[in-house]
Amino acid sequence: MQFDPTLYLVTDSTGRTDEDFLAIVERACEGGVTLLQLREKERDGRDYLRLAKRVKAVAARFHIPLLLDDRVDVAFAAGADGVHVGQSDLPVSEARRILGPDKIVGATAKTVPQALEAFEQGADYLGTGAIFPTTTHVKTVLTPVSTLCAVCRAVPIPVVAIGGLNAGNLSVLEGAPIAGVAVVSAIMKADDPKAAAEELLRKVRALKAGTR
Amino acid sequence: MQFDPTLYLVTDSTGRTDEDFLAIVERACEGGVTLLQLREKERDGRDYLRLAKRVKAVAARFHIPLLLDDRVDVAFAAGADGVHVGQSDLPVSEARRILGPDKIVGATAKTVPQALEAFEQGADYLGTGAIFPTTTHVKTVLTPVSTLCAVCRAVPIPVVAIGGLNAGNLSVLEGAPIAGVAVVSAIMKADDPKAAAEELLRKVRALKAGTR
Repeated sequence: MQFDPTLYLVTDSTGRTDEDFLAIVERACEGGVTLLQLREKERDGRDYLRLAKRVKAVAARFHIPLLLDDRVDVAFAAGADGVHVGQSDLPVSEARRILGPDKIVGATAKTVPQALEAFEQGADYLGTGAIFPTTTHVKTVLTPVSTLCAVCRAVPIPVVAIGGLNAGNLSVLEGAPIAGVAVVSAIMKADDPKAAAEELLRKVRALKAGTR
Repeated sequence: MQFDPTLYLVTDSTGRTDEDFLAIVERACEGGVTLLQLREKERDGRDYLRLAKRVKAVAARFHIPLLLDDRVDVAFAAGADGVHVGQSDLPVSEARRILGPDKIVGATAKTVPQALEAFEQGADYLGTGAIFPTTTHVKTVLTPVSTLCAVCRAVPIPVVAIGGLNAGNLSVLEGAPIAGVAVVSAIMKADDPKAAAEELLRKVRALKAGTR
């Protein structure tokens, strides 16, 4: 299915009530998020499904595709638009086999070989990083911007940059042929998630325009 | 698909190398285990899949169906014979929708209402307990044998008793119309898993014969 990865919000509900969390997601959608990923590492399947259905209802109102992190079965059950798998999750090929050809399957690729493997297995897009250290993935190895650029050139699918990116440091990506930017904290921890999304969308669009 | 729940081994690989774990599973299969569940709460999807494929190869040699705990997507990817879902996992109906009508979907039901719900959603069997305290589920609420009997009578599908059961305490189940007994430690922690499975199989068969 069609999707626009320009401003990709990866959520984090840690330490929040579901209501507060959903309110932040809704504000971010109002601000112009173009793609949404629900990432829940601690929830059991049933609880993850319950929350996914609620987020799906919000995303659907804004016509924003919702992907789930890791759990292909929960994504299927929730009627999500797809899944994002990391290097320790099920392979892209298995996610694709469960979800079928019409859903979005994205993958984390930190290197060119990982990018080629994910593409060959049927990934629709790649997330590459971490560009900067993050609070959500504390042990993450950083990916240099030169590697990000090599990944972009190695595969014919969209590549989004991820990892510690915010409105203040996006300039490191100038000239990189990315399709978008994925953020967690820059929106989820913003005082005003809508304003944060608006500013990020403006800046990412400018970045992308500059690379054409 | 057809299955015999008489002696249902639920595995626990904690603290073991994969090789040691697989050797125990193989010995247990030799001893007469009739149904096998791989339960891995700590592994990531890809690692769970890798181990599941190895266990599947062992189980297939003995023509013993292999179910996976919780992860319906990993069960699908591994070509397992089905899945077992607890009350905090995906609902039976969703597991059934992903795996299709031919795979085995089992569910934990601690009460008659839970049993009826799981049956109505398409469960092929129920696991009911814990009959005794267990080391694998430390916070589990115990299910009295009278409730186990009520569950057996409430649904037309096989019900297996689970929770701290071993060759020395099976007699508490005398007269209960169970289809089988599920064990973890009684086999996984036995000095001789094959001999333990043989003794358990003999005793469970005697139990079932006595209830006819």
